[in-house]
Amino acid sequence: MSEYGKYSTFFSEILLFWKDLSEAQKSMVQSSMVIKQFEAGESMRSGSENCSGLFLIESGQVRAYIISEESGREITLYRLFDRDVCIFSASCMMKNIAFDIYVEVEKETRAFLIPIAVFNKLAGSSMAVMAFANELMASRFSEVMWILEQALFMRFDKRLALFLLEQSNIEGSDTLKITHEKIANHLGSVREVVTRMLKYFQSEGMVEVYRGTIKITDKRKLYAFTMPSG
Amino acid sequence: MSEYGKYSTFFSEILLFWKDLSEAQKSMVQSSMVIKQFEAGESMRSGSENCSGLFLIESGQVRAYIISEESGREITLYRLFDRDVCIFSASCMMKNIAFDIYVEVEKETRAFLIPIAVFNKLAGSSMAVMAFANELMASRFSEVMWILEQALFMRFDKRLALFLLEQSNIEGSDTLKITHEKIANHLGSVREVVTRMLKYFQSEGMVEVYRGTIKITDKRKLYAFTMPSG
Repeated sequence: MSEYGKYSTFFSEILLFWKDLSEAQKSMVQSSMVIKQFEAGESMRSGSENCSGLFLIESGQVRAYIISEESGREITLYRLFDRDVCIFSASCMMKNIAFDIYVEVEKETRAFLIPIAVFNKLAGSSMAVMAFANELMASRFSEVMWILEQALFMRFDKRLALFLLEQSNIEGSDTLKITHEKIANHLGSVREVVTRMLKYFQSEGMVEVYRGTIKITDKRKLYAFTMPSG
Repeated sequence: MSEYGKYSTFFSEILLFWKDLSEAQKSMVQSSMVIKQFEAGESMRSGSENCSGLFLIESGQVRAYIISEESGREITLYRLFDRDVCIFSASCMMKNIAFDIYVEVEKETRAFLIPIAVFNKLAGSSMAVMAFANELMASRFSEVMWILEQALFMRFDKRLALFLLEQSNIEGSDTLKITHEKIANHLGSVREVVTRMLKYFQSEGMVEVYRGTIKITDKRKLYAFTMPSG
């Protein structure tokens, strides 16, 4: 049994196809799998490889985003947490994916990497693995559609309010240590717009804005503000 | 041989998995397949069913779009033409797809429908069919990402110029019979904004605007306008 043997419960819970693999396939995965450790701010990839394989996040937090070549503006598409699987780090296995998604580590992250060659081999020989990749892509597609709808159809002030609430939920705190610049990068906007809007939220008594910190002071009001009628 | 036997060349060219099907599977597809005829303006579905199955477009033109519940604003995600396959009419086969895409017929369309039950059965028993669905979804995902990037990072005037050029390409004509309202629905905008921008294009000598018609008078200039440096 490899050193990864002790993680087999974790694998079987995260990789829904695990039970459908043969013993030979399981041991191929376990013997090729690599543990990777990433610091906040790092890009989640293995060496210079953009398509490293499938990352299973044991613990941590990352965000997937796109960036405008022209303006350098960014927008977050989705975030991954403990026990999530990053399919876009294996996007080269999917023909017809013609866009780049970047993955940035937001909090120290420990992840297992199934190298792309191994994952490709599995997907080519197991319906269950292919169905897993399919469902994962469909689920990310849904998240991106939600971002598209928000970006297109929702006013920026509501999106910002929603982001602050989500962020507070992720952090488990009403005091958010985040710069206006970072918020702009999550929302596809620019710092100036975020700063202006936060000042308005402050004047309405929903938040207090400090250097590098935003404190949510009236969560109910902020939440009500995100509603269609608000 | 069923009445669809004569289309088997068409099927084998469009459905890349056709050669991998058994004779029994082929005849299941051919005997269950239905020919559907849609008029411009119709929604592409079978009866009241949102998830009818896989439509193979023999000839015609449709657009896939989303609509904002709140404001009723629309945006076109992609368009399909002769020999394209509509995967979102079979989206219920994909778990984790948590959004609605509407499909509207833009020009009279004739399509073959593989009913969802049959397509599901195929996908459950053939790696080739599942890979086909996977690649089709990846390709639509890429188109949606392109729309997201445009909508987020490209100025509206450039997007409008790009749309007019694409439309002219689709129609094979520099005279476009389309209302400002329809253009707004393609681009996730509103009529007033489109009208204002077209007036500006007219003042720059790129188009002439008539009731229900836009004539592109300087294609080169319009094209140059879409460029990052322009």
